[in-house]
Amino acid sequence: MKIRPMEPRDRDRVLDIVTATGNFTPIEIATALEVVDEGLADPESGYFLFVAEEESGVAGYECHGPTPLTDGTYDLYWIAVDPQTQGSGYGRALLRFAEEDVLRRGGRLLLIETSSQESYGATIRFYEKSGYPLVARIKGFYRPGDDKLIFARDLREAEG
Amino acid sequence: MKIRPMEPRDRDRVLDIVTATGNFTPIEIATALEVVDEGLADPESGYFLFVAEEESGVAGYECHGPTPLTDGTYDLYWIAVDPQTQGSGYGRALLRFAEEDVLRRGGRLLLIETSSQESYGATIRFYEKSGYPLVARIKGFYRPGDDKLIFARDLREAEG
Repeated sequence: MKIRPMEPRDRDRVLDIVTATGNFTPIEIATALEVVDEGLADPESGYFLFVAEEESGVAGYECHGPTPLTDGTYDLYWIAVDPQTQGSGYGRALLRFAEEDVLRRGGRLLLIETSSQESYGATIRFYEKSGYPLVARIKGFYRPGDDKLIFARDLREAEG
Repeated sequence: MKIRPMEPRDRDRVLDIVTATGNFTPIEIATALEVVDEGLADPESGYFLFVAEEESGVAGYECHGPTPLTDGTYDLYWIAVDPQTQGSGYGRALLRFAEEDVLRRGGRLLLIETSSQESYGATIRFYEKSGYPLVARIKGFYRPGDDKLIFARDLREAEG
């Protein structure tokens, strides 16, 4: 398995993966694709896109970038792995790659925002197991009963 | 005192007010103006801009809009009052106006994000006194030692 920058030819496969996870609404899928298109088209977009690839093709992708108005904080905007290959370490590898890339760019804090919806349970456990404590919950953020969860990791602390 | 939609002729005065507060860095001031320009130029921008005006001129402004990917959540992006007229109720009036506008548009939750920096102490007390409990703190968000604070109010609860 290797991790490499996303290329335009990966776009359709990324759409398949995001859709296949079953975690995202149509409008969220459209937003994920907008970010992919912006990141592919403009190196100055602030969206850094990478895919995890195995012999049979792309298994997952992630997108991270600097959080506006901050000094050294980054967001993991999207991370998704084909459900058929989940549990094989692609998500973990993509997350570790993003962390290293943030450190290389001089960043120090990586944030992940997600939904408290039931369907995201496995995702939440994945972040917690990967060293991202839950640092905030905004009740009813997405809709009544669906909270925003914010996970954060101090990468320099984790490194040192 | 009246509250009315911001117009292009208010732009210079708004820049003066944002600068005079002393709360914002040059890049934050530039961002505030970008939002003003976008909101003035495009009714579909999702930035709703209003000013508080007295006989002697504009005393303050606020900007709010729907939070992307949410159902009924709004952000109060900016609120600023000329320091020379602070304490006269303009901030409170602008905030109450924003709340009513959010309810009119079918919104239910209003969020305010700010910095924990010392200079923001009066702002923080203003939000708390206005019915916005602190619901989250992201440590070191802006820079080491400068946290992001998130205040939130359930407007339907507040109304009922």
